[in-house]
Order: sequence, then structure tokens, then C-alpha cells
Amino acid sequence: MPPAATGPRDSSKSLASFSPPLRADDIVNRRRKVPKTQWGVAAPASSSTFKIASNLGSKPQSKRWDHLLSPEALSRHPSSVKSAAKYLSQPGLISLGGGLPSSNYFPFSQLTISVPPKGGPFADPSPTPHTTVTAGKNDQANGTSLADIATLFQYGQGTGSAQLLRWITEHTELVHDPPYADWGCTTTIGATSSLDMALRMFTQRGDMILGEEWTFASAVETAAPMGVRIVPIPMDAQGLLPVELDRVLAGWDERARGARKPRVLYTVPTGQNPTGATQLPTRRREVYRVCQKHDVYIFEDDPYYYLQMDGYVPGMAATEEAKPSHESFLASLIPSFLRIDTDGRVLRMDSFSKVLTPGARIGWVTASAQIIERYKLHADVSTQGASGISQLVLFKLLEDHWGHGGFVDWLIYLRKEYEGRRRTMMAACEALLPREVVSWTVPDAGMFLWLKIDHTKHPGAGEKSIAELEEEVFLGTIRHGALVMRGSLFQADRDSPLGALFFRTTFAAASEENIREAIRRFGEAIREVFGLEVGEAAGKQGILAVEV
Amino acid sequence: MPPAATGPRDSSKSLASFSPPLRADDIVNRRRKVPKTQWGVAAPASSSTFKIASNLGSKPQSKRWDHLLSPEALSRHPSSVKSAAKYLSQPGLISLGGGLPSSNYFPFSQLTISVPPKGGPFADPSPTPHTTVTAGKNDQANGTSLADIATLFQYGQGTGSAQLLRWITEHTELVHDPPYADWGCTTTIGATSSLDMALRMFTQRGDMILGEEWTFASAVETAAPMGVRIVPIPMDAQGLLPVELDRVLAGWDERARGARKPRVLYTVPTGQNPTGATQLPTRRREVYRVCQKHDVYIFEDDPYYYLQMDGYVPGMAATEEAKPSHESFLASLIPSFLRIDTDGRVLRMDSFSKVLTPGARIGWVTASAQIIERYKLHADVSTQGASGISQLVLFKLLEDHWGHGGFVDWLIYLRKEYEGRRRTMMAACEALLPREVVSWTVPDAGMFLWLKIDHTKHPGAGEKSIAELEEEVFLGTIRHGALVMRGSLFQADRDSPLGALFFRTTFAAASEENIREAIRRFGEAIREVFGLEVGEAAGKQGILAVEV
Repeated sequence: MPPAATGPRDSSKSLASFSPPLRADDIVNRRRKVPKTQWGVAAPASSSTFKIASNLGSKPQSKRWDHLLSPEALSRHPSSVKSAAKYLSQPGLISLGGGLPSSNYFPFSQLTISVPPKGGPFADPSPTPHTTVTAGKNDQANGTSLADIATLFQYGQGTGSAQLLRWITEHTELVHDPPYADWGCTTTIGATSSLDMALRMFTQRGDMILGEEWTFASAVETAAPMGVRIVPIPMDAQGLLPVELDRVLAGWDERARGARKPRVLYTVPTGQNPTGATQLPTRRREVYRVCQKHDVYIFEDDPYYYLQMDGYVPGMAATEEAKPSHESFLASLIPSFLRIDTDGRVLRMDSFSKVLTPGARIGWVTASAQIIERYKLHADVSTQGASGISQLVLFKLLEDHWGHGGFVDWLIYLRKEYEGRRRTMMAACEALLPREVVSWTVPDAGMFLWLKIDHTKHPGAGEKSIAELEEEVFLGTIRHGALVMRGSLFQADRDSPLGALFFRTTFAAASEENIREAIRRFGEAIREVFGLEVGEAAGKQGILAVEV
Repeated sequence: MPPAATGPRDSSKSLASFSPPLRADDIVNRRRKVPKTQWGVAAPASSSTFKIASNLGSKPQSKRWDHLLSPEALSRHPSSVKSAAKYLSQPGLISLGGGLPSSNYFPFSQLTISVPPKGGPFADPSPTPHTTVTAGKNDQANGTSLADIATLFQYGQGTGSAQLLRWITEHTELVHDPPYADWGCTTTIGATSSLDMALRMFTQRGDMILGEEWTFASAVETAAPMGVRIVPIPMDAQGLLPVELDRVLAGWDERARGARKPRVLYTVPTGQNPTGATQLPTRRREVYRVCQKHDVYIFEDDPYYYLQMDGYVPGMAATEEAKPSHESFLASLIPSFLRIDTDGRVLRMDSFSKVLTPGARIGWVTASAQIIERYKLHADVSTQGASGISQLVLFKLLEDHWGHGGFVDWLIYLRKEYEGRRRTMMAACEALLPREVVSWTVPDAGMFLWLKIDHTKHPGAGEKSIAELEEEVFLGTIRHGALVMRGSLFQADRDSPLGALFFRTTFAAASEENIREAIRRFGEAIREVFGLEVGEAAGKQGILAVEV
């Protein structure tokens, strides 16, 4: 069972509404009626229209964050041109207002996707043929779907279309049920952009933010040109250490640091990139409490949330358990920061990239209404929201075809697949890496395995820097025909000398065959660089691999 | 004929290559061979690989812009993780590097679009059924297309995919053939985002940039939260006045203005929003020369470029001319700033929004290699480039189905359609508006008609401000059942008092019937507010409209 299943689901439940909690298969029946105009071209949309149980309870309001927002964020105003849209509801009004091209001039009359049937089988290629799902130009007018080409291929709002926003809002309520009243979502063009926008909302040139000491390289590189650096917080096998977080904040010296006290924590709590670390529920609560204590706002970047896996037991083959119910799958997921966020101090970034397709460039963020409004106003004058073509494709799959339950079925399938890939990776590491110098923690989530190499075991340990040893192992591995990522790329603070020797590997993409073979090659390279005997198992595997 | 056709095509031609100029129908035959790996997942791509005639000539290099770039732009470095990609070309290498999900887990095996046949007929709904074009998951491996689901639904580069970038580069060379050697393109997520990114590249908080006195409202609202204001430059019927531009720059007083001398001009040269003004070739050269004189960089925002129309003659019905050849259509387009840009001081923003679909969220920018590199590095850590689903849809239409010539055919069709819509609009204005107070310039391009109302003719002209009169006319028009846009929304400098009474109307979207009726209602409202007699023609039209 995944770690979360060891305790009851998060206690924030007690704060929640009196209405029964959402169930995936019951959401459609519990939807409130909304006027037809909600689904029109560029119709303004808000999660508050679509929340179900959350709207009925008595949750507290979120805190306000004006004191943490940048001048850029504070000075945003609604689009003056879009403000004219309020008159459009007047019956019989003819608009010569908006500069929207007529949908007659979109040279597309139909879009069809072939996708796995609801409930599976999902395997690709599958013996069962895929189902086709079709969107026409005027399905809304014809009454066959809420989304069509005329609407979603047109200009839209920074929030994305109401059609997909409803699905996202409901899904968020189903999975996270935030414990405050005025939460909301907005569709995004992916988490990379969300972080860019969130940083511009909460930081200014010269600021420092808090983050894991080993972190997503792109986050460092997003922040750096803005003049924003990351203060590295030490980690253990569960990731971020709350004691260290508190220590850094409590002892903050503006002068020594050359920056005001950080007001933002950037964290990847589940299957962290690059370490694979997952914060367990207690850890998350402790981190949250430290953030409350120092009034720190949290960016929860959680693309691997759905890639939480059952525990790994060395040597154990794949089990053929019965497929879990939707409810038990969802209950097995570790509560997110959003789920314990009584203050509304979390901006949670979700992504479809790891569970459907990165190419859609669609994700979503969840936060308090104040932050969602700031985000949307920025999107209106920058990204303009996600591609409408992508939105239509996801809507047809998630709403018109699979539904909420069907998406959960897909997530259950993905979990099994990633468990299989992880099993292959772990077995390869156990058999083929020189354990006397390489060690690791089995990841509970995500797609990464973080391998530590004991640099002190190198014959030239005293003379060579860790960076030099990293280079040797990296290039040696390339020579042996495998590519792994240098740990130094993931340093939160790249100006500090490298303190340990790590490599990041992933079991996400290569075939199981190739995972084994690449680990074998990596092991060989390490043995060569460290002057170790070639392991017998490794040698044999090598021959086998060549024979295959 | 459109204005450009009165003179020979731009003289920058003389600077160009010795190879024959591109022709739409010959591009495919003149392509250079590129290695297959160019079309792989997230393969880095550059226009320099795809340029045809430009690569053979002896054009000068562009100038460098380091002295104009912001600290943010200057401090960008290539992604450290992506730098490992260079090893991927080693034969037999197995990568456990990039955290890309396996395409086996994209739940899409096919995507099909229905689109007009190459060469038309294009009318929608058309008596000729649309053609279907299909992308499969592994068409590249199967040798049936360069683009497929496995590749374009995966992560990509900030430039967009090589597949679409090639098409865009070739199209840009065909249409604009920039007169310097190191020009290049990158795919974008649309011009709104391009402007956001360009402003962050060239400006800092407190800066002022130059722009038309009446300008795209969203541009003002993109710049304002960054602390960047627009200096309004007076316009005439051709838009921006170079003499005024020079006057403002030559007399710039940092202290009085509270900002350093502007280093950027933002201009919409064709069918400007909101005025509909189009700068003719001589005007463009004069503006360019002033920018050279003061070392001002130019943002050329040109979404209406392809909506250039033949001249309008009142009372003349639609002519049934023979369809122009691809060459004569392209030769009829006014040379862009990019086409006369010998210094490489233009960042040109193009968009598919007005000619294919806004929902794709795909456009492109063209500039010198230095600027394109800065743009791409920013995209890598923010937008991550355009939706791959959108890219696949456009690639299937533009490359695999229509080809360059087929797209030009579509543009020729669109021109005719917009000419028809403009004819309806102009005839309605001539018949139904009180000419004693309303005047206009017939737009040569775009989708907007900018109507000037002589506020001095209002009975209370001395007592009421122009803003008050604007409000009266606007609300009166709403009461009469039509929506037009207030001119004040388009003031470049919103802090100045409103100096003239304008309304923006569009002929892009409403049916011809509704265009007439809305103009009738607008005319009624003006007559009411200005205390004029109800025109006889107007009365009649009104009855007709009700009968329809």
C-alpha cells in the first residue's frame, strides 16, 4: 500500500461541509444548473459556479495576501475591452464590439480523436480497437455537446473555457477538497508557465525563495533571470526538513543574505524531481506549520501526484490484486498541501503532462480567489490561456467520453504501469550496480531514482573534487553507452561547491529491456572509474543484453 | 488594387541573394536535406536549417542589441538539463536522462481533422464535403508523415517543433524575405504572449515606449503592470506620423518625462486596431529611418497583414475578377517593416489567429538570431512553446494537406470575404449614419472601422466633456440594441483627458444583415443624443430589418 494508506484520510475533513463528499461517479448528477450562456464564446468562468459540496459547507474564508504580492501583481486591472462583455446578455443586442473573426473562417469542420474505451483496456497497442470521439463545428447549437469548434477554436479567457474549467474544478474537489471556502482553479498552459507567473506575482528582483536543496533545474532557471535565487533547505529521504526550514527562517539575516526574508516556499512534495522523495502526511503538516509561523506562501508543484505507487518489496513479482475501487484509489493518495491548507496559502500547480500528454500544454492551478483572480488577469494579457484545440481534445476525452470515473480508471492503470517500470529499475540496480559505492532510496512516487555514489571510496578521493568525479562518471557512462543526469544540474544553489555525488535516472520512458541494459552500463562505468572488480552478475547480464 | 501594388515591390530586393526568389509552389522542391533526427522528440530546431534563398545570398549581418536588452534578457542561459541532449546522437546510447513520459501512455492513437480541400472551395458550409486528414501515433516511424502523436504530443522546445518551424520559416521567407542574413523565426503561443515576452526583454520598470496615440488596449494593459507606459505618437489616416515620432524623440527630456529616452516603438502597421489605419510603403520607410536615427527597436505587431483589401469604391458591387496568381497576390501585399529591416531592428509578431483560428494559440516571431535566441530561452522556462496538439493540427493542414500554395489560396479567399464584409459595412454607414456629425476613413486592411463623431456639433458641447458625450452615445447605442466600442478604451495614454470622440466597430464577425442593422441602431442613437432628425433612409432600413 502507498504510504498514505497507513493512516485515515486527512483530518481537515472535519472542517469540511455537511454535504456528502464527492464520489467520482456521482459528480454529474450533483451538478448545479448553469445558464446556457456559460458555454458561449469567451464566456467568463469561475470555479465558484462549479463547486459542488464546497459550496454547501461552512468552511472559513482564506487569508488575504496583499502584503506578499509584487507591485506587478497588485497593479493588474481587468481588461477594459472585455468589460464590455457584460452588455452581451441583453436580448437582441447586436455586437460590433469584439474583434473576433467569424467561426465561418475557421477551416475546420470536425475533429476526431481515437482513444481507449472508458474503463479500458488501456494498453497501447491494445487488442481492443480504440473508440473515436468527434467534435463538430456547431455541436453546441445542435445540442450534441457543450464544446465544439466554433466555441473552443475562438478566442477565450485567461481561465480557459468554462467547459474544461468545470471538469477541473470538480476533479480538484474530488481529490483535494480544500478546507477553505473561496478556493478556485484556473486552467493554465502547464506548470512551467505557472511557476513563471507565480514568481512574478510574489517576488521582485533581489528576492530569495525557499526550496529543496536538490530541485527541479528548470525552476532555478525560471527564477534566476528574474533576479530571484533559491535558498537550499536540507532534505532527508522524505524531502524537505521542517526543522531546517524553520532554522533558516528564524535566523534570517537580511544583511548577510543580501535579501529580505523569504516569503515563498517552492516545493515538489511527491516523487520530487530529482530525488524521488515523497513527503508523508506528518511531514507536510510540519512544513505547513513552519510556513504559517513565518507567514510564508507555498508553491506546491505536484506533477507526479498521480504517480504514487504501492510499496516496493525486493524480489517480489507483480501482484495480481483486484483493481481498487475509485474511492479506495483516491483514499490511497497522500493528502496534498492544498488539502491541509486552512489559510489558503498554497498555490497548487497540477499538470496533465505526466498523466495524459505533455503536448497539450494544459495544467491548472488551485488557490484562493484573490490569487486566482491575479493569475487570470495576467493570463489575459500574456498566455491568453491554454490552446482551445488542446482544451477541446481534453474535454472530449475527459468529459464527453471517460467522465470523472473513467479518468480515475486510467490513473489506476498508470499506477500499475509505473510500478512495473520501477520494479524493473530496482531489480536492475540491485543486481548490476556496485552496492559498495552506490546507494538509493526506493521512490514511492514519480519517475525518478536518485543514486548516491560514495565519492570517498574513490582511489583519488582526496585529490579530486566531487565535481571532477561527477564528470568522470558521467563521461564514462556515455562511453559505455548510457545517459544519466548529473546531480549537480539539480543544485538549488549553483554557486556553492558540490557537496555530494548523485546521478538522476528515470524509469519513465525507456523499455524495460533498455532500463536494465543502461543500468548495467552505468554500473560498469562506476566500477571503471572507482577501480572496482567487474561484478559477475553484471558481466553475464551484459552478454545477455547483447544476445537479445 | 491594394495600395502596395501602386509601386514595385520593396527595393530591399536589391540586397538579396543571387538565387531566384521563392515561389509558393516551388518551396518543397528547393528544400535542403536535413538529417532524420531533426524531426525527433524535442529536437532542437533553428530557422537557419530551413531557410532557402536567404542562405545562398550575401546579405549583411544584423546589428547587436545588447545595449537595449534588460538584465532579465541578458542573464538567460541555455537549460542545463537540455544541454545533455547533445549526447543523444551517439549510436546505441540508451537514455535514462530526460523525464519524459513514454508515448505508450498518451491515450491517443489517432487525430483526424476535416478541412477544405486544397485550392477550395472554401465556403463553410460548402456544397463540397471537407477532406479528412489523419495523424497517427507513429507516422514518423512508419514513414507516412514527419509529424505524429508520439512526437508532437510529447515535450518540445521553446521554438516549437522543427516540423512547423520549417513551414513558418519558409512562409516568412516567401512573404517577407528579410534583407539581412541572420534572421530567424520561432513559433509562439500567440502575439499577446509575444508582446509580454518582448517587453520583458527590452524594457524595465519605469520605462516608456513609443506607440500610436490610439492603440491596442491589451498592449497598454500588458505593459502597465510591468511599470511601462506608452508615449502616444499622433496619427493621420495612414497611422503613425514619423515627423511626430522624431519630434518626441529629439526633444526627449528625461527629467520632465520621468523616464529614460524610449528604446522601443510598438506599432501595428496594417489595419491598425482600433483605427484601421495602414501605413503605406513610404510611411514605413520614414518611420524606420526615424528609428534608425534614434536607435529605437521596433515591435511590429501585424496580425491583420493578410487582411489587406482591394480599394473600396462607394456604390460599386463586388467584381468577379479572375482569381489572382499566388505571385500577384503576394506582390500586392505592402512590404512589412521586416522586409525593409536592413539592421535587424524589428521583432515582427505574426499570428494565425485572424487567418486560421485563434484557438490554436499559435503565432510566430521573426527577428535577428540574437533576439530569437533570447526569446527561445525565455520560452523554455515559461510557455514551453505552443501546444503540440495545435502544432500537429496546423502541420497536418499547412504542410501535409494544403502546402504553401494552398495556404495562399486560402488567404486569397479570405481577402474576398473581408472585402465583402467591408462593402456591407461601408454601404450601411453611408446610408444610415448622420454624415453631418460622423466621419471615417475607409480601412484598407483589417477588421475595424473607426468612426469619428464631431462632438462640437452636440447641443451641450461647451458644458459636457467628451468623455460624458462618449458615455451618452455608448449607452444610447446599447439601448437601441447594438454594441460598439468606446474610443477611450484605446487611448495609449489613459491619464490624459479624452481629446476626440471615436467609436470602433468591426465587420469581422456579425452577419451582413446584422452589420447593417447594428449600424442603423448606432445611427439612431447618435441622432437621439445629438438631437438630429431621424433620417428617412434609416427609418426605412429599420422597418426592413424588422421584417427580415
